[in-house]
This record gives sequence, structure tokens and C-alpha cells, in this order.
Amino acid sequence: MTKFGKDPRPLVEIFCQAGQEALAALKEHDVEALYIGVMNPEEFTGDSNIGSQIVEALGLTGIPAVRIETASSAGAAALQAGFQAIASGYYRRVLVLGGEKMTHLSTSATTRILAEVIDKQERQCGATMPALAAMITEKYRQKFHLSQTGLENVLCGVAVKNHFNGARNPFAQFQRAITRENYFASKFVATPLRLYDCAPITDGAAAVVLTSEKTDVRLSGIGQGTGPLSLRERDTFTAFPATQIAATRAYQMAATSPQGIDFAEVHDAFTPFEIISTEDLGFFAPGKGGEALLEGKTSLEGPLPINPSGGLKARGHPIGASGLAQVVEVTKRLRGQIRGSREFKRGLAQSTGGLATNNFVTILERSDSPVVQNAGHLFALKLPVESPKKTKPSTVISDEGQIETFTILYVTPDGFLSPLALALIRDQGGRLLMAQGEDSVQLKIGQQVCLRRIDNFYLFTVKSQLQKVQESLKRLLRRRTPSSSKEQLSVEKKL
Amino acid sequence: MTKFGKDPRPLVEIFCQAGQEALAALKEHDVEALYIGVMNPEEFTGDSNIGSQIVEALGLTGIPAVRIETASSAGAAALQAGFQAIASGYYRRVLVLGGEKMTHLSTSATTRILAEVIDKQERQCGATMPALAAMITEKYRQKFHLSQTGLENVLCGVAVKNHFNGARNPFAQFQRAITRENYFASKFVATPLRLYDCAPITDGAAAVVLTSEKTDVRLSGIGQGTGPLSLRERDTFTAFPATQIAATRAYQMAATSPQGIDFAEVHDAFTPFEIISTEDLGFFAPGKGGEALLEGKTSLEGPLPINPSGGLKARGHPIGASGLAQVVEVTKRLRGQIRGSREFKRGLAQSTGGLATNNFVTILERSDSPVVQNAGHLFALKLPVESPKKTKPSTVISDEGQIETFTILYVTPDGFLSPLALALIRDQGGRLLMAQGEDSVQLKIGQQVCLRRIDNFYLFTVKSQLQKVQESLKRLLRRRTPSSSKEQLSVEKKL
Repeated sequence: MTKFGKDPRPLVEIFCQAGQEALAALKEHDVEALYIGVMNPEEFTGDSNIGSQIVEALGLTGIPAVRIETASSAGAAALQAGFQAIASGYYRRVLVLGGEKMTHLSTSATTRILAEVIDKQERQCGATMPALAAMITEKYRQKFHLSQTGLENVLCGVAVKNHFNGARNPFAQFQRAITRENYFASKFVATPLRLYDCAPITDGAAAVVLTSEKTDVRLSGIGQGTGPLSLRERDTFTAFPATQIAATRAYQMAATSPQGIDFAEVHDAFTPFEIISTEDLGFFAPGKGGEALLEGKTSLEGPLPINPSGGLKARGHPIGASGLAQVVEVTKRLRGQIRGSREFKRGLAQSTGGLATNNFVTILERSDSPVVQNAGHLFALKLPVESPKKTKPSTVISDEGQIETFTILYVTPDGFLSPLALALIRDQGGRLLMAQGEDSVQLKIGQQVCLRRIDNFYLFTVKSQLQKVQESLKRLLRRRTPSSSKEQLSVEKKL
Repeated sequence: MTKFGKDPRPLVEIFCQAGQEALAALKEHDVEALYIGVMNPEEFTGDSNIGSQIVEALGLTGIPAVRIETASSAGAAALQAGFQAIASGYYRRVLVLGGEKMTHLSTSATTRILAEVIDKQERQCGATMPALAAMITEKYRQKFHLSQTGLENVLCGVAVKNHFNGARNPFAQFQRAITRENYFASKFVATPLRLYDCAPITDGAAAVVLTSEKTDVRLSGIGQGTGPLSLRERDTFTAFPATQIAATRAYQMAATSPQGIDFAEVHDAFTPFEIISTEDLGFFAPGKGGEALLEGKTSLEGPLPINPSGGLKARGHPIGASGLAQVVEVTKRLRGQIRGSREFKRGLAQSTGGLATNNFVTILERSDSPVVQNAGHLFALKLPVESPKKTKPSTVISDEGQIETFTILYVTPDGFLSPLALALIRDQGGRLLMAQGEDSVQLKIGQQVCLRRIDNFYLFTVKSQLQKVQESLKRLLRRRTPSSSKEQLSVEKKL
């Protein structure tokens, strides 16, 4: 992989460096095809037809090249496609690449492009990836009864741990440790998430050669799952079914379980996502990931290191590269190529596409670990996926509801003033919707709100005590005075 | 597949119609994954994370979804990825989708997005897909000694044949035949290509279910190849190595040959490309495709029908859908689902990505035709691909050269005046470059030109007879008068 960070070269050149280094490490330099993971070169760098561009720049014109995309897990998706091509016998050796170039754009332009992966209606309210991640985090805090301070300590713990690890990784964007003080001094992006809770904007590429020949590391399991696009279609906010489905498949295929994993690289685009991932992967019980982190279980010297490379947080997050960079990091560690690292037998990589809408889990192990045979049926396992529910038809939303979760967004997309209050509201019919706050009062999960629709989006106001008294009075009036609606209206107006 | 043409629905809905109809045709409705071919939903319709969008809209949230892109062959690329996934045993049944939505944009906006797939330097000169296709066509005419009229008759023949076929296809965008007079009345887009030589701008989607179970049609061969991005890096202009490589692999895998194919759907984004494709696929010798067409060999009732569905020309060309729509058409014809169609055993689909930079060939056959066993090694065949040459380093271009091929572009991209003369020039060192003409004189292949560089692109002027005499005189003067350079300059100025 390239050194992640700000890279002045064109995207195709960054890809080529990773590809050339991977090819140079082979005894025979030929590969039969390229599988390229990249999220949005069209809008980030104006590059279309990227497969043909890269195959030509590598001097490999003639051989097949395919671009694969699953939002921010594109690197993992390319690995899966390359793996399936090899496993089918169609190719014997392929080069898998993942990369993205983003730092040349302004933060607001990058935020806008990144926000395109989320649901359109939620985007129209001003929601961004950090905003939705923040709302998930607030819900997590409430569901698992964490205090504000308790949550902050966990998030800070992830950031400090991953920066500590990144300081030991020469390929990381941030090769320096941070203190608790640094963390708490960093500004809010979207409450409760601070700048140090968010992976940075990064350029970089990673490369992996897959071969049907036996080598020192084997890909023993890989799985993919999808999840609802919008927050308002979710049954659960504090876990990602897409990861759970992917993990189930990967564990089954590798004939192992969470207990068989020695270490993992997970998609910590936001620090709370590392905690949720360790729960979705079955390492810790739901709600217990934070505790495990604070106890040091996931630190570099702990029993189950998580993101020993520094994770997306410190290594950087060139979108299409991240899912494949994880696999590079796991492979290096299994091979003992990381100085000072313990010996590991089996590692896992977990990659998240969008807001956990398209996730992957990959398991790699040293070839000298025994091959476990399951019932002679290595692939094609039936997944224990619930039968998918149909998208609900659009329905009329009532004009009152209560806050399911919320955030105050400070880094807003173009066209939205900062700070911006956003909340997921459950209306009286039990339907969820995303809405913008009309005033910036203190918000809390469970608060009663009034809803107002303007064009395609909703505004909410928190009901004050006064409003509640007014409403009781109104109801009282309606019951007692069977007056004409005109008179009633005039009474209500006085209220 | 959906009815191709102008479709007012959002892209995801168009995809869903194709997907739902494919699923409804199954006995059991479940598929294990989606493979989605689409070229540029980011820029055409502002849709990112399209895999997650489609899986949700189909009510299949949970199952894996992957987006595949190889420019305009994305539909075929998705089929290949789905095939490899099934062949690996990883899945037993997948839904492959291809689609694009384009008609809501202006022609100039669409042309700009489409032009992004071509080489950047050539695009800077004002080159578009039709411009480069036109230059290839002019070169073909010269190489195979066709007269202007001879070429026009061939191109007209393709357009008339494909519209005749399209008139019989209820899914085609243009369901009406055209006459020779219609053809010759249509305006030039880029000489020698007229409007009726170019596939239209279209919305649409296609769907295919692939399964490991035996059905009535089997995918017996599939191959992919890439070719140089720019015209100036090509060794040949009148054939597409990307098709030849893809065809070689597909024929080997299906254990058949061009002689074993009963009919084909080929990528006639421009009428001359149909002719070149039938040569690249080995149906006719190089330069003989036009003759075969004029003899009726490729017509609906001929021995080898080409584009019996109407091709991209009449069926329409929703970019990401086309490569998969071909497979739908071939399958329907093999199944006898096309009213009035003859019985066929084996059909071929050929799809082109970009300017033939990433091409696919797929062979389908009726399952009641015998399975030919090659040496027990159905996949993983070594391809007879020449060792790829490294991209030439950028070199200094001399200030004179000659025209390798050219076009006069009438439909120019934003920011370029019409008409625009474009030529591929071979300089005195044998290097090729794309250049814009400074004046609109009559151009011919082989003409001598002067070159002038301005910023990132070149301008050319055709040397007049006068210029040639002046140059001879200059040379004479230099030889005879060993005068000071100042005197010589004054003599030259007078000339």
C-alpha cells in the first residue's frame, strides 16, 4: 500500500504505485486480471473508465480489468470479486486494487460527495455521514444506559488507542499518539462526535495479489451483507445487520467463530463504529464493547487487538482503499512483517459501505494452521437471514411525535447554517422520519415534538411545558363547550 | 428488460422493474446476491451507493449487492462477475442487473459525461466518442480501399438493417424501419458519421438470473479483454484487440469457433463498429464485413443474423443496460420466445466499453445442444495475448507531420465551436498525437501538416502547395548562401 495521507499525484498514479509494488513482489510478474475497488473517481477526480486507465498505466493493456463499488467498502468488494474469480477456476492469479483521492477538494465538497451515499430524504434535511453516525451513537448511549461521561470516555479511548497504534505504522496518515486532553480539546463535528472521533480525508491505494497456488496466508472466509439505507427504515440503531450477516457467512466458510480470531481490523470511520463492530462480530456482547475497550482487551497488548494498524482513524480513510488496506495490514501481521508484533494465526477484516448498508467480513489465516473441513460444502452455505421486509409505502405522517435520537451538527453541508439540530422522530403512528429542528433548545431522546412539513422535509419544535398545558386546556374546552367551530377557533386563538 | 426509450421514472425504479420481472419468472423467488452493471449513476442521476439503493427498493435488504463498471460494457461485466460467483460455488443463484438513465439531461451534458471515458488529452482537443469513432471509420475506409460512396453504402446498410429489425422488437426505442433516403437526409455528427450512424440516448434496464441448476439455456463461454485508451497509443485503428482477446477466451471456453455461432448481438454504438465487430469476432475477414452485410449475410433471414433485435442503433443504448440486454435478447431467441424467429442453437453477445478499451464476448447455447468437453480444463486457459507494451514516455513532438486519420465534428462538446476539424497526426519521429485544425480546408489521410502547441494541446494547418515551394526554396538558400543568420532571416521573411 502507499503511504496514506495527502498525495499530490493523480489517482491513477497512486493506484499504480500500489499495483507495481505488489507485482514486483511476485516471482512471476504476470497476473490474469485486475479487480479495482474505488468509490467515486467520477466526482472526486473526474476519472471515468478507471479500469482501462489503470490497466494501461500498469503497462498491462490486454488483460481484463473490472471496477467494483459498494460505497466505502469497495476495496473489500473488489477482494471478494477477485476471490470468486479465482475460486471459479476462471483465473489463477489476479491483482486486486483499492484506492481513492480526496484531499485536493475542500472539506465541504468532500462531505457533499460522501453524503451522496446516504438516503436522499435524510440528506435533504442536512444530514451527513457524521450526523447519522452521531445519532446512532446517541441512541447507543441511551439504550445501554451510559452516562454522557461514560460515553465520552469510551470514544476517547478508541481515538487514543488507535492513534497510539498508528504512531507505530509507517503507512499511517497520523503517526502520532494523542492524549485525552487532545481529544477533549477537539471540536464537535456532530454531538456527541468530535473531530477526533472521525476518520480523516485521505489519499491512498492498496494492492493484494490473489492466487490459486498455496502461499503462506490463505483467505479462509469472506462474507457480505446489506442493510437499510436510511435511519428511518431501521429496526435497530445500535447494531449493523449488514456486518452480522457478513460475519455469519465468513465464520461459516472459515469454519471458525469469534473465539477463533486473534486480532481484527475494523471500519472505525467513526470511533463508536469500532465499538459496534466488535459487538456485531461477536467479540463482545451488545453494549459491552466499550467496557472491553476500557479494560484494555482490544489494545495492542491485549487479548484481542482491534485496529493494531491504527484503523481508519489514524491510518487514514481513502474510501476505496480502506477495505483492502485492512487486508494488507492483516496479511503483514500474519506474516510477521510488522516489527515488534506478536505472532498471530488468524485475523479478521471488517469493512463498512455507506452507513452500514453494504458490509464485508474477511478472514485470513496462516497456511500452517490446520484446514478445518466442514461438511464438504465449503461455500454455498444457506444464510440465517430473516426474510427481508418490503419497503413501507409512504404514509401520512402525524403532526406530533417524539425524538428517537438526535444530533447537533456543527460541520454542515453547503447551504445549511451551523449549528443544525437534526432528529429522527417517531410519529404517533410509529413511523420514523428525519427532521430539522426549528430552534436550538436542549434535546433529549424521548422528548415530545410538533412536526411541520415544508416541501420535501420536516421541521420539528420541542413542546414546551406551556404548550402541553395549552393542549390540555384545548382538549378540556372541546369536551365542555359544544360551541360552533368558529367560536372554538376564537377561544383557541386567545390561548 | 424494460421498454427502452425515454423513461420518466427514477433510475432505481427502472432497475426494479427489470429485477422484479426476472424474479417473478422464477419458481422460487429467492436469489442470493445482486450484481449490478451501471456506468455513471453518480453524474447522470446523482445516485451513489446504488447497490444498497437497489437491494432495498427490491425489498431484498440483507443479501449482498455489488456494483460493477467497465464503462459502456458494464452490463456484460456484471454478468461475468455473477457468473464467476456462481461458478465458484459461492452462490447458487444471483440476479444480474444492468441499467442507465440519461434522457433527462441535455445532449451536450450527456455527450460530456460519455466523453469522460476517453483519453484526457484527446478530450481536451474537443474529441468526443462520435469524433473518435469517425476517425476510426475514415481510417478503415482508407485501409480497405473503399470509396466514399462504398463506405456510405455500408454504413447506411447497417442502419437500415438494424432499424428494420428494431421495428419487430417491442422493447426497442425505435420501432420503425428507415429508408436509404432517411439515412442520407440525416445530418453529419462527425464526418463520415451521420445521426443515423449513432446509437441514441436512452433510459432502460435489463435483468438476468444466473443459476447453478440446469435450465434450458446455458452460458458456455465468456471472455474479457482491454485495449489502449487513446487513439494515439494504438497499433491498429481498424480492429479492436479488446474484442479479439475476449472472443478468443469465450470461444475456447465454449469449445467452439466463429463457425459454431448461429447469430450475434454486437455493440453497434456506431454503425461502423458493427462491421468491425463482425471481423474481430472472426465471422468475416478484415475489411470484408461491409461486403458481407451488403450481400445480406447478416440480415434477419441471412445465414448469420447480426443484431436481430435492432442492436444498440434501434433498440437504444442505456449504457449500463446494453451489455446485459444483448444477453436477454440472445436468450429469448434461443428459447424461441421471439415471434417469427428461426430456431437457433448458439448465440453470441459482444459488448464494448469506452472506445473498445474494455470489451466482453459471451456465448449462450440451448442446453439440448451437446456439451463439448475440452481437455478437462474448462476455465483457466492461457490466453495468446501479446506481452503488453509499456506506455511510451512523453517525448518532444516535432513541428511537422502527416494526417493519420481525421474527422469534421459537427456536434461539438460545450466550449468548442462547430464545425471542428480533428486529426490524429503522426509526427516526423513516428509519434501520434491528437490535434485541432486551425482552418477548415479539405482534409485527407496522408496530408502534410504543420503543428503548433498551445498549452496542453496541438493545432495543425495543412501545408499548401505554396508552403511546400517556400520550404524547398529555404532549403536551397541555406545550402547556397553561407550568409549570417540575420541575412538569411531577412531573405526568409521576404519569402
